[in-house]
Amino acid sequence: MSDQRVLRPAPVSGFPEWSPEIRSVEQRWLDHIRAGFERYGFASVETPSVENLDVLLAKGETSQEVYTLHRLQADPDDRSDARLGLHFDLTVPFARYVAQHFNDLTFPFKRYQMQRVWRGERPQEGRFREFTQCDIDVINVDQVPLHFDAELPRIAHEVLSGLDLPAWTLYVNNRKVLQGFYEGLGIADPVAVIRAVDKLHKIGADAVREILVERAGLTPEQAGRCLDLAAVKGADSASVVAEVTKLGVSSALLDQGLEELAFVLDSLADLPAGAVVADLSVARGLDYYTGTVYEAAFDDDPGYGSICAGGRYEDLAGQFIRRSLPGVGISIGLTRIFAKLVAEGRIAPGRSCPTDVLVVLPSAERRDDALRTAALLRGRGVNTEVYHQPAKLGKQIQYASRKGIPFVWFPPFEDGKGHEVKDMAGGDQTAADPASWLPPAPARD
Amino acid sequence: MSDQRVLRPAPVSGFPEWSPEIRSVEQRWLDHIRAGFERYGFASVETPSVENLDVLLAKGETSQEVYTLHRLQADPDDRSDARLGLHFDLTVPFARYVAQHFNDLTFPFKRYQMQRVWRGERPQEGRFREFTQCDIDVINVDQVPLHFDAELPRIAHEVLSGLDLPAWTLYVNNRKVLQGFYEGLGIADPVAVIRAVDKLHKIGADAVREILVERAGLTPEQAGRCLDLAAVKGADSASVVAEVTKLGVSSALLDQGLEELAFVLDSLADLPAGAVVADLSVARGLDYYTGTVYEAAFDDDPGYGSICAGGRYEDLAGQFIRRSLPGVGISIGLTRIFAKLVAEGRIAPGRSCPTDVLVVLPSAERRDDALRTAALLRGRGVNTEVYHQPAKLGKQIQYASRKGIPFVWFPPFEDGKGHEVKDMAGGDQTAADPASWLPPAPARD
Repeated sequence: MSDQRVLRPAPVSGFPEWSPEIRSVEQRWLDHIRAGFERYGFASVETPSVENLDVLLAKGETSQEVYTLHRLQADPDDRSDARLGLHFDLTVPFARYVAQHFNDLTFPFKRYQMQRVWRGERPQEGRFREFTQCDIDVINVDQVPLHFDAELPRIAHEVLSGLDLPAWTLYVNNRKVLQGFYEGLGIADPVAVIRAVDKLHKIGADAVREILVERAGLTPEQAGRCLDLAAVKGADSASVVAEVTKLGVSSALLDQGLEELAFVLDSLADLPAGAVVADLSVARGLDYYTGTVYEAAFDDDPGYGSICAGGRYEDLAGQFIRRSLPGVGISIGLTRIFAKLVAEGRIAPGRSCPTDVLVVLPSAERRDDALRTAALLRGRGVNTEVYHQPAKLGKQIQYASRKGIPFVWFPPFEDGKGHEVKDMAGGDQTAADPASWLPPAPARD
Repeated sequence: MSDQRVLRPAPVSGFPEWSPEIRSVEQRWLDHIRAGFERYGFASVETPSVENLDVLLAKGETSQEVYTLHRLQADPDDRSDARLGLHFDLTVPFARYVAQHFNDLTFPFKRYQMQRVWRGERPQEGRFREFTQCDIDVINVDQVPLHFDAELPRIAHEVLSGLDLPAWTLYVNNRKVLQGFYEGLGIADPVAVIRAVDKLHKIGADAVREILVERAGLTPEQAGRCLDLAAVKGADSASVVAEVTKLGVSSALLDQGLEELAFVLDSLADLPAGAVVADLSVARGLDYYTGTVYEAAFDDDPGYGSICAGGRYEDLAGQFIRRSLPGVGISIGLTRIFAKLVAEGRIAPGRSCPTDVLVVLPSAERRDDALRTAALLRGRGVNTEVYHQPAKLGKQIQYASRKGIPFVWFPPFEDGKGHEVKDMAGGDQTAADPASWLPPAPARD
């Protein structure tokens, strides 16, 4: 083998990969999130990793981030793959899914989708090119009850609260508040303002003011009021509405937006204090949101960006079907959260293997005994390995110890003797019956 | 919306996608397979969907099937993505993973990996371009105990037996038997013979004979004996060895291969009759197998190809690391099996949503009551929806019925009244306490 060229098995930047100890934690997280989504009746959907490019690009804005696929050995004349791209989020594929399966779904259709997505970023520290998102969306025909605008952040809160994260806050806003306020101020292009305000936390108030005046054509007075609105923040709906009203702008859309925002805040008032906060600077740059918007960030590192985000959209499936199919959704950035905590050493490694019990192999002659013992244990759901070859006892126990296997089982080494099990943590070794023994519950985590 | 161009939301051929009812069955399958793998102590690993092309192409043979990635808006001069391809199996990424994480793993390293893989096939009926595989492999330093050659098909058998599949058989062979036999016959290029014999079931004995004589340069006598060997088949190790021995060829490698094959058959003799059969025509075309090989097929549709396959390899990680890291693995073709059964109508659709209980929303005023009721139920693990808006009772019950939700819960419609729950299957409606009620076990599937 020594004369062979050795390829360095390097990680590919932006494509995270975990050791078994970390992967077992990630799997536990995924199971927890899934159970949380199902607890609220959301159904699992998976879509292909690939969509036709015209589906992916229908919204235009993110086109620079798409990875297209090409067959390595394709004929130059063969264009059959040229229109395929990896999805960059789960919302666009879901909108296509709903339109395509429209006649087979019951509405309002509530689905969760936990899949990898890809963004064709330049390789760069901290940028993921492949990552897992956990999305829930509700899509309905013609109108989506406001009920869901409050239910989705509740689910996200419940799910993330079970993951022992550093403190974080879910910020809520409503695009109708922003748009209604800007319109009330007589601004012609509210979307340009939304895009500028969306940069507030990155570039600061003065830079936003400059954009608003220089590029969006606002008067300094208008720009000042937009920044006043963006400064409104609070968990109590009445105070938030009062603060906005005090700014002296009015429009029917603004009123409707405030009513919706207050409904969401009031519906979530039973959550722990500070869990959900209205923040009128939250705009969500993507232009398909039309009402409630969400964005969650770590309290001690708000600059890391959103760990969970979403909102209400009116027409995402509109390009696929001649029906009005509005929706509201929220997306948990699983990899975004998990990879940060791994990098910071805040994820306690899990077990390196799921084995509860290692059954010792006393000798080649007693292999059948060992296999039968293991089969009995497995039959009751105990994850069990049989040591893979006859070897000195010390070596077999050392293997269990290195792998963190909590119990070692000794089948009879000679006829007439009984079974024994050793608790690797406590060191106790006691007689046990493979037909009835179970590990104590905590060891089976 | 009517003036908009409507994109037909068509499925992309070769990229399967399921309705929620079918997806829920697929998820159950995946959970079942994962639990089966963990029962034997295999640890979860996931690798990125992408590898460097030189990793994917190190083995050469499958290069025409690789999808490469390109950024849609990449600068023509930017070659940073040009060397990335989607993995076409899980074995090559796993070999790279083991080499890369070598110092952090405990050997023998036993992992399972359940992920999507991609093959850049031309779009064509019945060919998947994206599909999920469920692999288990054991890799060890220097040598892998034969124990695992028998354990892997046992796990595959146990896992697939729990999925209510049409009858299928796992065929076992050993490349040393083939190579040793061909060498014993004085054939210079045994690999050419293996490739030809691998086509036996597709093209028939006469065509294979012709290839062996015309192209591989065998004498008709040698070709005949190769075909005689390929005809040997049986579940009993002693008879299989006897039949091969009767063909009058001998070599040390052949003897070793027969001994290994017999060990595998004997170790699995406790499985149901006919579950595992030695079939000396099984060759597995890929040239990295060096010992035991596996291939499973449906009894009523053997031509559909292998639903589960694998074998022992000596040097798959050899291009990444200057250590000898042999392994043995088996791969369940989840999508291959599942999609066939879906297409044939042999998968009974599951629930369209995981909801156990729909809590009726009596009126906007009683929303908090309904939410509290649901929270109590969810707190005990009952998957619960609250109806999303005040509506006529009949409409709410109809929604539960259409979605197949087994229970409808009536919180008090006015003060002083109690809770009731309706069993949608039986029609009974009874008083119930949201703080203690649980659905009967079978309804929670």
